[in-house]
Amino acid sequence: MSIKLLSTSKCFGGEIRRYSHQSDTLSCEMKFHVYVPPKSDKKPSILYFLGGLTCTDENFIQKGGAPQYAANCNIFLVCPDSSPRGVPAGEEDCWSGPGAGAGYYLNASNEKYKKHYNMYDYITKELYTLISTEFKDLTNTEKQSIFGHSMGGMGALNIFFKNSNLYKSISAFSPISNPINCEWASKALKSYLGDDQSKLEEYDPTFVLKSYSGPKVDLLVDIGTADEFFNDLKVDKLKEVNNQNINLTLRHQDGYNHGYFYVSTFMKDHIEFHSKYLN
Amino acid sequence: MSIKLLSTSKCFGGEIRRYSHQSDTLSCEMKFHVYVPPKSDKKPSILYFLGGLTCTDENFIQKGGAPQYAANCNIFLVCPDSSPRGVPAGEEDCWSGPGAGAGYYLNASNEKYKKHYNMYDYITKELYTLISTEFKDLTNTEKQSIFGHSMGGMGALNIFFKNSNLYKSISAFSPISNPINCEWASKALKSYLGDDQSKLEEYDPTFVLKSYSGPKVDLLVDIGTADEFFNDLKVDKLKEVNNQNINLTLRHQDGYNHGYFYVSTFMKDHIEFHSKYLN
Repeated sequence: MSIKLLSTSKCFGGEIRRYSHQSDTLSCEMKFHVYVPPKSDKKPSILYFLGGLTCTDENFIQKGGAPQYAANCNIFLVCPDSSPRGVPAGEEDCWSGPGAGAGYYLNASNEKYKKHYNMYDYITKELYTLISTEFKDLTNTEKQSIFGHSMGGMGALNIFFKNSNLYKSISAFSPISNPINCEWASKALKSYLGDDQSKLEEYDPTFVLKSYSGPKVDLLVDIGTADEFFNDLKVDKLKEVNNQNINLTLRHQDGYNHGYFYVSTFMKDHIEFHSKYLN
Repeated sequence: MSIKLLSTSKCFGGEIRRYSHQSDTLSCEMKFHVYVPPKSDKKPSILYFLGGLTCTDENFIQKGGAPQYAANCNIFLVCPDSSPRGVPAGEEDCWSGPGAGAGYYLNASNEKYKKHYNMYDYITKELYTLISTEFKDLTNTEKQSIFGHSMGGMGALNIFFKNSNLYKSISAFSPISNPINCEWASKALKSYLGDDQSKLEEYDPTFVLKSYSGPKVDLLVDIGTADEFFNDLKVDKLKEVNNQNINLTLRHQDGYNHGYFYVSTFMKDHIEFHSKYLN
């Protein structure tokens, strides 16, 4: 396991670094960004952000406005790509997937995609181990959290509630909340997983949250009322889950749409939310 | 004169809007972004940001981190493109110009470029009039300021010190400060203006600042000590100008490079600097 430093830029007293590495899980070269907060007496905790459809490792770190709040809260950010890159399967597909920029943070079982489209294992195993190893001197690896946007909000929800031993806290911006009942998301999921309903439910947050039985956890979710995908995302379905172990705060943000101008507006709230559990 | 609204996104309680219009000065269609701060009892003042080489109207508004501070300071941001677009001359040229993305905020006199490359008149006349007219009900058009980054820092300096009647305040991030003595910038300037030294000096900030004789003005300039163009920008030449009517604060920011991660770090300082003169 080795990573290659591609670039480094000082930002809000800390450092944004871009790395590449050869991923065994995805059978391709992957890039990711980290934000190292300014030096302090205490090692920073770790917070993963999972990007949405079409996003690479660059969108969030450039447009999310997160570094200033991560600096204030002594948080080390990890910003992975949203899907395998430069692989034969998928480059021809559409923005909503299956294919490039649309990995849905799952492990594909269908023949066409299973060699590369294993973003679930990449995030929870390969990258988790890589970050915890490569940055063990620089971070507090005992404290890690996760959040994301849109497809990445869906990924963060699924990953957290199936691995609550790995992460301390969870939040999401405008997550795809019930992909089975979203036309384009269910089409992508079926391409990766086949038609078996129980396989699809494994990656549907409403089902994953329903079956969660770990320790009581707070969940912060935002969605804009002017979100152009409001009806597809079905965020209100998360409320209906009604799991006693999940304390959901679902905020409808008046007039905001689906883009990064909205995400950046509420970034402070989300990073300070995670900071409560990470610090 | 008419503008066409292309998109609108709520951000930090205000609104980011993108417009297009047909520019007579540049003989092409141009796009720009504005940020309308949240409604308040007082009409917002206006602050222009001029982007650097290769930038369109999108880079600053997406990566600069400005809207939150503009919201706090009740400032209406205007974010023009850095050069004419989709015009026959210049598309083949390199990143440092002459050509697309490298308008240098001047009026070209050479035959090849003079139909389109008139960014100086575009910013100070056409766009200034358009903004003051189209947004007269929404803004305080009596109070306008200007700043910019790199080539746009050079543009802001030249434009302010030749038109201090139009603008209340001026600052710059890492401006090209003495283009005549920068290999690639002087090459571009000569392509636009010819070899006549006095023509070139009209767009060289060290000469423009030297000949400034307007009211006493504060000037804030930042540059990163790890700026990959540090030697080309010659920012320290601004110090040597030593014009009694210009009170220069030149800050060397330790370890920062030339990119938007650096710009975003000091955006608060610059917007609050302008706010002193705009509010």
